[in-house]
Amino acid sequence: MSEVPAPQIRDTSAVDARRAERRARMGLARLTEPAGAAVRDEVDAHGAVAAFERLRSGQGPLAERLRRRADEVDPEADERATRWCDARVLIPGDAEWPVALDELDAPPLCLWVRGPADLAELVSRSVAIVGARGATAYGTRVAAEMAFGVGVQGWTVVSGAAFGIDAAAHRGALAADAPTVAALACGVDRAYPAAHTELLGQILRTGLVLTEVPPGSSPLPSRFLARNRLIAALTQGTVVVEAGLRSGSLNTAGWADGLVRPVGAVPGPVTSTASAGTNERIRLHQAELVTDADDVLELVGRMGEHLTPVRREPDRPGDGLAAEARAVWEALSPRAGRSVDRLAADAGLTGAEVQAALASLEVDGLARPGADGWRRS
Amino acid sequence: MSEVPAPQIRDTSAVDARRAERRARMGLARLTEPAGAAVRDEVDAHGAVAAFERLRSGQGPLAERLRRRADEVDPEADERATRWCDARVLIPGDAEWPVALDELDAPPLCLWVRGPADLAELVSRSVAIVGARGATAYGTRVAAEMAFGVGVQGWTVVSGAAFGIDAAAHRGALAADAPTVAALACGVDRAYPAAHTELLGQILRTGLVLTEVPPGSSPLPSRFLARNRLIAALTQGTVVVEAGLRSGSLNTAGWADGLVRPVGAVPGPVTSTASAGTNERIRLHQAELVTDADDVLELVGRMGEHLTPVRREPDRPGDGLAAEARAVWEALSPRAGRSVDRLAADAGLTGAEVQAALASLEVDGLARPGADGWRRS
Repeated sequence: MSEVPAPQIRDTSAVDARRAERRARMGLARLTEPAGAAVRDEVDAHGAVAAFERLRSGQGPLAERLRRRADEVDPEADERATRWCDARVLIPGDAEWPVALDELDAPPLCLWVRGPADLAELVSRSVAIVGARGATAYGTRVAAEMAFGVGVQGWTVVSGAAFGIDAAAHRGALAADAPTVAALACGVDRAYPAAHTELLGQILRTGLVLTEVPPGSSPLPSRFLARNRLIAALTQGTVVVEAGLRSGSLNTAGWADGLVRPVGAVPGPVTSTASAGTNERIRLHQAELVTDADDVLELVGRMGEHLTPVRREPDRPGDGLAAEARAVWEALSPRAGRSVDRLAADAGLTGAEVQAALASLEVDGLARPGADGWRRS
Repeated sequence: MSEVPAPQIRDTSAVDARRAERRARMGLARLTEPAGAAVRDEVDAHGAVAAFERLRSGQGPLAERLRRRADEVDPEADERATRWCDARVLIPGDAEWPVALDELDAPPLCLWVRGPADLAELVSRSVAIVGARGATAYGTRVAAEMAFGVGVQGWTVVSGAAFGIDAAAHRGALAADAPTVAALACGVDRAYPAAHTELLGQILRTGLVLTEVPPGSSPLPSRFLARNRLIAALTQGTVVVEAGLRSGSLNTAGWADGLVRPVGAVPGPVTSTASAGTNERIRLHQAELVTDADDVLELVGRMGEHLTPVRREPDRPGDGLAAEARAVWEALSPRAGRSVDRLAADAGLTGAEVQAALASLEVDGLARPGADGWRRS
């Protein structure tokens, strides 16, 4: 009888406590949207379970604002809807909870997550690639190639599953066989936009779809803005590929900046309104210019882990010559022979200087004499 | 007799001295190319006339290197060639000499100048707009529009009269009826490239064509590099519109940077090799991103004289609403009426909250009731 597993009893009670906290946080998510620092303070002060009961029953500073919603909160219904779409609910303390979210002033109360991957693991090396819905062919091409390159190097692309840049980013990652994460502005049981039902299905096969709003929630504009902060907070940096001056993706970049995460932007033609926002952010030094996956990983990667070499073209023949030899080499043609006098006139040198330069060029294999004079070789 | 104009005698001798210095500098330009700090030191130490005689007669540290060229120097012939093409020769101390050139380690010994304008005056508010010969339609369009905008605002465009960006910049300035300055890598008596003979003629009608190399000199590559430093030094800043990774126009930008003049670069598609050099300079923080004439003048203009407003789109209806009113406004459609229940579900609010929000929206003229429910108005 002394072998009654007391620790197991404590485990059971811990499991019960976690279940209660999970349900309370789901209820708080329904009750208090949009997430704010005041809700976080309530939870920090009282714990999620007590905070939920306080707010639901009309106590505390937030209660007045929330009272009218309290009647509509139905945690059991939300749990059924969650099970129905095969989602799980993550809360702080779960192994899969990304601790980076706790850096937000208004962290999500919980996350509804679908998909086989481990969220914390996927986002431990991740970058947000976002941009305008109204993307150009240029933007979608760059987003897909960038996401592909990032994915090939083992990094996770996080985006918003929207039309345009977001979809191209997810598709590029999938093309690299890299799991990708879609953060939604609606319930995780909804496929939005509907035209991306198949894309979301592809993402779900290896990656994750997540949201902080309860099942059934519509994709309201204000929810997109809140969702953007999750994308910024989940990742080590945010890249905006194309954005008009007022694109929501710049809002994501703003969140990243506020979280002291690097922000990259892809430049584009100054004649393209789809690049006006990215160009402007670079101009104002609010984003770093990035051109490809290597630039992105240099930006978001650990210092020195990825360092894009300064781009330069290979050396050309004639590089590194002394001034006079170079002047003569420049005055030579590969197609027609030239006399020493002609070379001297063209190069601004004396005949003797040209003779000396030609001798050294011939030794270096850069000039050769012929019947009609000297040629470049 | 006491009224014999002694000052006039001194004037005559001063004129003679200037003439001698001008001739000596022309001879030094022929003798010592490329210009270097050693030549400047000789001139500083001995004066141009004595320095020319020293170098020509084989004295001084440079004489050994230059002796073989000395026989070919013919100042009288250069003066004839200068007159023949209706050019003038400027030297330091002339009112038209741009003092900014003296900031160079190797300032030009003199400048051959053609055209009706006053060089010092033109470049006192000037910007270099340069770029690749192999420009795209995008680059030439942006260069022309930028130069036009700069010209309209009374600034002078300085460029190199080359194919591509340079020509587009000159043409944009001319279209704004603004005098423009072409700095050549060959003698001022030569039209290079030959296809730009007419363009150079147009530039000469109101602006200037100049060079530091004597009449008859060929446009050698090394002379383009030297010419680029003049473009950078003459202007208050340099803008590169399009440039491959190894474009000579980046060399101009490098000179500007060395002279602590601002450098701007126009971004372009990351898929365009013609923008690879400009994008790279921006990425490495070696150039500021500029998109139009206003950005350019903000960059090169006196502090605060030109300040590009932060670009933003006009406010939209719905901006500035309280959170609940905004959520309801977002859930409204302009095309179909919606019930309070539907709005409450979409906005995540209670029916009472929606009613209150609708009342305030109606007062603001943002919502109106109808037979089929509420609409956005």
